[in-house]
Parts: sequence; structure tokens; C-alpha cells
Amino acid sequence: MKVIRNIAELRQEIGLMRQANPTREASVGLVPTMGYLHEGHASLMHAAKQQSDIVVLSIFVNPIQFGPNEDFDSYPRDEARDVETARTQGVDIVFIPTVAEMYPQPTQTTVSVSRLTNRLCGASRPGHFDGVTTVVSKLFNIVQPQRAFFGMKDAQQVAVIQQMVNDLNMPVEIVPCPIVREQDGLALSSRNVYLSAEDRQEALVLSKALRAAQEAVDTRHDTTAADIRRILRENIARSSRAVIDYAEIQAFPSLEPLADQEKVHGRDDLLIALAVKFGKTRLIDNTRLQTTEVMSHV
Amino acid sequence: MKVIRNIAELRQEIGLMRQANPTREASVGLVPTMGYLHEGHASLMHAAKQQSDIVVLSIFVNPIQFGPNEDFDSYPRDEARDVETARTQGVDIVFIPTVAEMYPQPTQTTVSVSRLTNRLCGASRPGHFDGVTTVVSKLFNIVQPQRAFFGMKDAQQVAVIQQMVNDLNMPVEIVPCPIVREQDGLALSSRNVYLSAEDRQEALVLSKALRAAQEAVDTRHDTTAADIRRILRENIARSSRAVIDYAEIQAFPSLEPLADQEKVHGRDDLLIALAVKFGKTRLIDNTRLQTTEVMSHV
Repeated sequence: MKVIRNIAELRQEIGLMRQANPTREASVGLVPTMGYLHEGHASLMHAAKQQSDIVVLSIFVNPIQFGPNEDFDSYPRDEARDVETARTQGVDIVFIPTVAEMYPQPTQTTVSVSRLTNRLCGASRPGHFDGVTTVVSKLFNIVQPQRAFFGMKDAQQVAVIQQMVNDLNMPVEIVPCPIVREQDGLALSSRNVYLSAEDRQEALVLSKALRAAQEAVDTRHDTTAADIRRILRENIARSSRAVIDYAEIQAFPSLEPLADQEKVHGRDDLLIALAVKFGKTRLIDNTRLQTTEVMSHV
Repeated sequence: MKVIRNIAELRQEIGLMRQANPTREASVGLVPTMGYLHEGHASLMHAAKQQSDIVVLSIFVNPIQFGPNEDFDSYPRDEARDVETARTQGVDIVFIPTVAEMYPQPTQTTVSVSRLTNRLCGASRPGHFDGVTTVVSKLFNIVQPQRAFFGMKDAQQVAVIQQMVNDLNMPVEIVPCPIVREQDGLALSSRNVYLSAEDRQEALVLSKALRAAQEAVDTRHDTTAADIRRILRENIARSSRAVIDYAEIQAFPSLEPLADQEKVHGRDDLLIALAVKFGKTRLIDNTRLQTTEVMSHV
């Protein structure tokens, strides 16, 4: 496994690796991350390994996707451990550029997706998704992968990036991968390290709220979007520490919100998404609603 | 030569042509145009032919780079003649997509370059350059050329696209090509067909103004930016039909305007640029200032 910090060197190395397979062009899978890798990232690398000949993991805490009062400086970093994780997962190249390598000058060019980015995380993090789509465009242009792997934990990010790829005809397939959770249900996140032991326990209301919403749909065919929103809020309110940013149900990937009276049973395009603060730590979680066919009595 | 209207088919054909050369990867040169081809475009195809194994010419009148009161509908088109011109120039593939092929849905994604686009043509054509950078991004992603050829007639466009390529690490080399002029000095443009015989004659003030500015620099070392601006305006004013949009001198490619008192001799990074209306027809022209060393008396 190679650790590369320089764009030109990365391009050269990928070119050599692709040529090394003379019978056919080797395919490249990219896993873009901000590092401080956990089992969620490992599952992305695993998927990339299965679907690609060459796996490139990028680790870059991208300053332009953080707001002025967000946690760019304090975002957790552990390069040595990340490199070991990558090695264990069979990654071929770890790309760890500096900010100066990625932005030798402040970028004058921005890639932005409208509509999809106005809601949910976009509403409370203005400019965040422009930073994401701009840096992902750069990484796609640098690595030129055939496939790129993203976690569904950031479901809105997946929707935004897929929209960008469609609109700009980018020659890459976006592969969304399922959320990985702790045994007790907490979705894995690099930001979980911010949580106190107490908040870590309180944060379980997120996955419980999602499960409660799913159960409501499983047991009652006439469950409406308003019911889902109420169930989410009631469950999250069981933690006195939790401050809701949003608790929403919408179509996926369009992210069009459902009207309160809309029934959710029988639809397979719905996403329930949460953002909740515990102290200074903002956690997100979500689930695609499953609408299993319930046998009707005949 | 193949004429292709479909993105998937174009990608397949380019892939086949590149593979047809087994000893080395064939290079692709892209000439993006809006059609109604003239000798200026022919010079781009010629340069592309010299520097590439496979030449792709795209013809697409891109609606999103036209303002609501601009000439999208009336922009001149002559596909049959364009295809013949391409054939004569040895083009391998002409790509002529419909608007529906390029924008099956209205694009939610925009690529925009700031600063460089606020001035000159950007000031009088708001949103124009966003339309250009977005469609050029799409064409780059569809064709994946090693080199793309642009005329210096649209000098600001060249600067904006180069900035985009740098900022987003696009894997393509931008090759700017010199302006091609009629014998009497008029810069070739598809929009010249809009000109009445009288305005066609009056429009010569543009190239004359540029030459007069160049002569001033050649003969007087202390020529300032203010002198250049005055010379340009005086020369253009010789046509009573000419309405100046801008007549400017700035650094290239930064497009930073020069202060009035700045001397221009000895600098090799200067661009004089004009936009002038004759009736409804807006013409642009420009020149890179040459600062030939004048022998001093010893």
C-alpha cells in the first residue's frame, strides 16, 4: 500500500497501476473520507475492494465545507491509525493531501447543487454542500475513478452528489453503502468521540426514534407523514439533552418533503432523517423506510 | 467521419477509437463550438488535428449561457455546412446533441467561477459564464479529452475556463488559439452575419482601435492605461453607430484592471478588450499587447 500526499504523484501511480494489467483496463474505486476512520468507512473500503481492481482511499478534512463556527480545527484526526485501517482493508493507495495541495490558491470555482441543498443539513449549514460538491469534483478529477463509495449515513450528501454526477455527466458510478451501527444502535460517526459518556447514552434516542417510526408503518397502513414526525419528536424528547435540528420525512433522492396528511405505506422512496444536538455535538441519522407487505385478512 | 447525437453512443465510439490503437492510448482533442463554423473554428480544428490522435468537434447552442433577452433563438445555425467543414478539416467525430440530450432535466448543478466573471462580458451578461463553465464541464466529462481548443477571440472565456480547470483539477490541457481575422481586420464571428453592409464596414473601428493602441505602445514608452483607454474610445467614436459596452486594458489571465496611471510598456501580460454594439449586434474583439523592445539611443 502506498501513502501519497501529492496530486501529480497520485495520478502517476494510478496510471502505472492501471497499465500494470495489460489484458484489460483496471477499474479504480474511490472512497473519499475525512479520516478518523471507523467501521462505517471500513465497510466502504470493503465494498470498493469487491467492486474495483484498485482502491484509492482519500483522507482530507476539507476546510471549505465547514462553516466559520463549525469544528474544522477540532475535527478528530489520527493519521497513523487511519493508515493501518486502510492497510487492513486492502486499500492500494491512501491519498492524504494537505490543504495547500488541494487549494494552492483559494478556489474561485464552485460546484453547487440547488434545491436539494436548501433543506435538512443545508438549511443549518449554509455553504456546506457547495464545499462538498466542489471537493468531490476535485477528487473525481484527480483520481478519475470508475466508482465512488459513500455512506448512506450522509443520505443528503449521497442525493446531492448523485444529482451533480447526473447533471454534469461525470463518468463515475456512485455506490451508496448502508449505515453501520454500534450494537446498541448508535450510527457510527467520527464525531461520536465528542460525546460525553452520558450524551453517548442519550444519543440512542435517534436510532430508537427511527425504529419506532418504522414500527408504526409496519403495524398501521394509515400512518401519515404527520404521524411519523410526531413519533420522531416524541421519541427524541425522551432525552432532556436532545435539541432537534430537524426530524423529517421526505422522498429520496428528491428530498421533497411529504405533506402532513400523506400516507407513507406502500411507498419505497421515503427517507426519515434526523439531526439532533447534544451540547455542541450535532449528530445525524436516517433510515430508508421499508414498506413490507402486511398480509390482509381475507 | 461520424456524426453522433447521443451521449452514450459518443462515449462508446470514442472508447472504440482509443482502443483501436493498441500500442499506446490515443489522445483526444475537443473543439467545443456553437456551430455556424468559420475560419476561426477551422483553425481550432487544425490545431486539434495536429496535437491529437482523435478530434471531436461539438456543436451545441447552449441555452443556459444566453440571457432572457439575448439571441438564443436567432443564433445562426447551418448543420449541413458545419458537417462539411468538419469533414474538410479531418475531424473524426462531430457531436451534435439536442437540448434534451444535454439537459434531460433543467440542471440543478452549476459550475461557477467568481471574480474573473464579474467584469467585461460578465458585467453585461449576468449568468453567461456560469452557463459556459457548466456546459464545458459537461462536455469535458462526456468526451474526456486530453486537450481542448478555444479561440482567443473570447479571451475572457479562455481565462475563466483555465481558472476552472486549475481550481477543479480537471485532467485536460486548455489550448488557446489566435484570433482569425478577415483581410480588412474584422475578427471572425458567427454573429457577423447579423451586421448590415453598412455596420459591417463601421465595425472595422474595433480592429483599428486595437492597432492604434498597439502603435501607441510601440512608439511611446510612457503610454499609460488611461492613454490606451482614451485611444480606444477615440477610435471607436469614429463610427457614429458604435455604442461602447467596454474598452478596457487589464492583466491576462487575471483580468485585474490597470489603474489609469499605470505604464504599459515592458509588460507582457496585458489584454486590451472591446465590446461594442452596432444596432442589436454586440461584437467583441481583443489583443494581447506586444511590447517589442524599442532600441534606445546610446
